[in-house]
Amino acid sequence: MKANRIYNFNPGPAALPLPVLEEIQASFLNFKASGMSITEISHRSSHFEDVIADAIARTKRLLNLDEQYKVLFVQGGASLQFHMIALNFLADGRSADYINTGTWSTKAIKEAQILGKSVNVAASSEDRNFCYIPKDLNFDPNAAFVHITSNNTIKGTQWARFPDTGAVPIISDMSSDIMSRPLDVSKFGMIYAGAQKNIGPAGVCMVIIRQDLLERVSENLPSMLSYRTYAAKNSLYNTPPCFAIYTVQLVLKWLEDTVGGLEKMAAINRQKADMLYGVIDASEFYNATADPDSRSMMNVTFRLPNEELEARFVEAALENGLGGLKGHRSVGGCRASIYNPTGPDAVEALTDFMRAFEKKNG
Amino acid sequence: MKANRIYNFNPGPAALPLPVLEEIQASFLNFKASGMSITEISHRSSHFEDVIADAIARTKRLLNLDEQYKVLFVQGGASLQFHMIALNFLADGRSADYINTGTWSTKAIKEAQILGKSVNVAASSEDRNFCYIPKDLNFDPNAAFVHITSNNTIKGTQWARFPDTGAVPIISDMSSDIMSRPLDVSKFGMIYAGAQKNIGPAGVCMVIIRQDLLERVSENLPSMLSYRTYAAKNSLYNTPPCFAIYTVQLVLKWLEDTVGGLEKMAAINRQKADMLYGVIDASEFYNATADPDSRSMMNVTFRLPNEELEARFVEAALENGLGGLKGHRSVGGCRASIYNPTGPDAVEALTDFMRAFEKKNG
Repeated sequence: MKANRIYNFNPGPAALPLPVLEEIQASFLNFKASGMSITEISHRSSHFEDVIADAIARTKRLLNLDEQYKVLFVQGGASLQFHMIALNFLADGRSADYINTGTWSTKAIKEAQILGKSVNVAASSEDRNFCYIPKDLNFDPNAAFVHITSNNTIKGTQWARFPDTGAVPIISDMSSDIMSRPLDVSKFGMIYAGAQKNIGPAGVCMVIIRQDLLERVSENLPSMLSYRTYAAKNSLYNTPPCFAIYTVQLVLKWLEDTVGGLEKMAAINRQKADMLYGVIDASEFYNATADPDSRSMMNVTFRLPNEELEARFVEAALENGLGGLKGHRSVGGCRASIYNPTGPDAVEALTDFMRAFEKKNG
Repeated sequence: MKANRIYNFNPGPAALPLPVLEEIQASFLNFKASGMSITEISHRSSHFEDVIADAIARTKRLLNLDEQYKVLFVQGGASLQFHMIALNFLADGRSADYINTGTWSTKAIKEAQILGKSVNVAASSEDRNFCYIPKDLNFDPNAAFVHITSNNTIKGTQWARFPDTGAVPIISDMSSDIMSRPLDVSKFGMIYAGAQKNIGPAGVCMVIIRQDLLERVSENLPSMLSYRTYAAKNSLYNTPPCFAIYTVQLVLKWLEDTVGGLEKMAAINRQKADMLYGVIDASEFYNATADPDSRSMMNVTFRLPNEELEARFVEAALENGLGGLKGHRSVGGCRASIYNPTGPDAVEALTDFMRAFEKKNG
């Protein structure tokens, strides 16, 4: 770790790979000999066309996407996707299955209901404060889609395996675990992810959409809210968030060329999560909040014996160069977010700190 | 000009002030001793709260906004605003007046019509390919609002004075001239501006909205499409485009503290435009496309005797370190965009080049 940088466990916006930040910094006044900053070049220039084309090509290689899938960049975060999904795919008379695994699933359901759409909650873990991924799933074979949240940032749970939905396409919010592990994309009609956790900064949402879903998009939608607009114009119908897409490109380059792809990334992520859950499970002082078979590899949520100790833990950690460990304001407790860019060295520093803090306060 | 930078006349994304770029670069690995990049800090941290609070405070000071006005940051560019305006303010039975002064006005009208809203085109300059700002305005006193585009980037026209609409609030797209001159905001119910021309990078749209308009927003809208959501949550309902807002903050700081405010900025912009139109008007070789009383101070559009010469002009200019001079692909010709950050030195270099090019090719 560079002397003046901290270990960053923020839930999002989150850490970015240091080589990515260094490349942005080095080229910030003059991007690729253009004589301009990346923030000053035209989105219709060959410079930016190269950026977006490379980001798409790397996404396709990393996830083994065939030509049925299009990669789009949309503004507004996952929260705007909650609306767009219902608007694009729930024409009158259609219904969708949503699985409710926490705050973000709940918001996705709410936005469909605001539009007056028919939503079937096919399963929910609300009965135990969303501390597990449901196993009893009651799918409607006529649903337009099944919506899931693959990783639940706030509750610290994650789908280890994805459900069998037959011919009904899955649409998944993967904001907090996209590109963290290999994925059989063929189960998914659409994947979307706010970039600011695993693949970039805030300000852009990646949407991966299959051709048959694109063909089902309702007609005559507002231009900026139709997936067809983005697919037809390669996400350049209007000025895109150029800097955010550029940063995503560099993160994907790091993931592909430096890390070596998603198998290797997943092995590192597994190692990081095992280290953290190992310390928690070996202790009576720390308690994991998620059921063991539903635990997230990305957001490790845990409690200490009381809230006063939790506050001291977060404060003392920051004094030791470990930032972002406070749980979400809606649930309290502690949370270590260990997305792709947060390396094993950071997790090792955290586990060392946790053992020392327990010794002193346990 | 730094040796390896060009003079940037891009229409948007456009030039940013060099001191702003240098400050971003210098702090890019460690923002305000946080140990994190601005791209890695939480939007709920005090670091980011300071950024957004300062951006709002500077906007209010620069434009003399009273407490009736709220400053919001929305993703999706002006193009999403075209939809949101109709969605928020045109409840069933209401109609709005739109003045059509070119491509962007036309798109604003189209998005209202997609929603099935009632639009009255109160005036249009389409009869002469939008080369002027209309003077005959047929307002409906019962309109929900009057929509105008204050500066027309593609056609090179600009409203020198704003129309009297009585009690009907004006909503103006000011994407390409916000903060370029002092403004009597009291005429406006709402102003919006994609940042990527005068005040920042692509990826964020500033919305300035008056309390009475906020109160008229329709109920039960999608969360991300209601102005009320942004006003209630200080633009932090979901993760905002942090880097873009930070850059806007720095540009506003430059405008307020270095330039000295909008009166001084307007004087500089007037000087720049006079230099350019002066060369054009003194020549038979260059021809301005906009009527003299409708000319834009931001986008100077002109033609050369033929398209071949225009192509050579753009190419030779770039070889001389003058970039972005090609007209919009929909109209051809040449265009010099001279937003706030493009200094008199850049315009002087351009006018020198124009005189030399004319001498050689005229």
